[in-house]
Amino acid sequence: MSSEFSSSPDHFEVRPVGWVRSPLTDRAGAPRQPDEDAPAAEVLLAPDFVPAAADLEPGMQVILLTWLHAGRRDTLAVHPRGDRTRTPTGVFATRSPDRPNPIGLHEVTLTSVTGNVLGVAGLEAIDGTPILDIKPVLGGIESR
Amino acid sequence: MSSEFSSSPDHFEVRPVGWVRSPLTDRAGAPRQPDEDAPAAEVLLAPDFVPAAADLEPGMQVILLTWLHAGRRDTLAVHPRGDRTRTPTGVFATRSPDRPNPIGLHEVTLTSVTGNVLGVAGLEAIDGTPILDIKPVLGGIESR
Repeated sequence: MSSEFSSSPDHFEVRPVGWVRSPLTDRAGAPRQPDEDAPAAEVLLAPDFVPAAADLEPGMQVILLTWLHAGRRDTLAVHPRGDRTRTPTGVFATRSPDRPNPIGLHEVTLTSVTGNVLGVAGLEAIDGTPILDIKPVLGGIESR
Repeated sequence: MSSEFSSSPDHFEVRPVGWVRSPLTDRAGAPRQPDEDAPAAEVLLAPDFVPAAADLEPGMQVILLTWLHAGRRDTLAVHPRGDRTRTPTGVFATRSPDRPNPIGLHEVTLTSVTGNVLGVAGLEAIDGTPILDIKPVLGGIESR
């Protein structure tokens, strides 16, 4: 830790607010990015967090933050897209799920909002992936 | 927790990989979004994670994931932009730092990369904010 920030906590706890339900069930079969043929999927919210989703509506673009539970946290460099002919690259210059804090960002379109179930298009995460947060994609300043 | 995912862990630990150094020192004075006059700032990486930044270069657009340590985690609805004349909105439809997992997303441009210090333009986070991850902004499929 930098001595300048030695009073900063060395870890924080995150809790799932929901989980992905998807026909994708293994990492090898998952598309690497959502514009590469991700199937329709759902986010099941834990009941405690349904009030936080009150103003989500079908058609909205949102960013899902996920916990990439299959990621290796001790990996600092990877071969891009798993291609061993490519030079290893520091993970902060990649979207690899292998990284110190394996948090995924997924920009998706909401297709339905019914109780604690959000329908989403364009999500490449596998079934059971924990959801940490949902954020709107920002429009122009005037719409904030 | 949804019974369907009752075997999923109920929390995960995240660790700072670095911290923000910025002239912004309090939340009230911080701009709400980076296109609202954020000053130049730096990311100080913890030494263990410098290898993960090996391929970052000045001019790159990256997304910083931060831990918004001043956020209130029990808040599920907020008045947009703190304006109490606006209707409370579920936090998943807002970018409020008050949310169950107070993780911030900040799209910034790298202005320098020197050892463990990254210069960044357009960062609205306050001094000392922990950094959880750095990801490149994705270009087209051909560049991945």
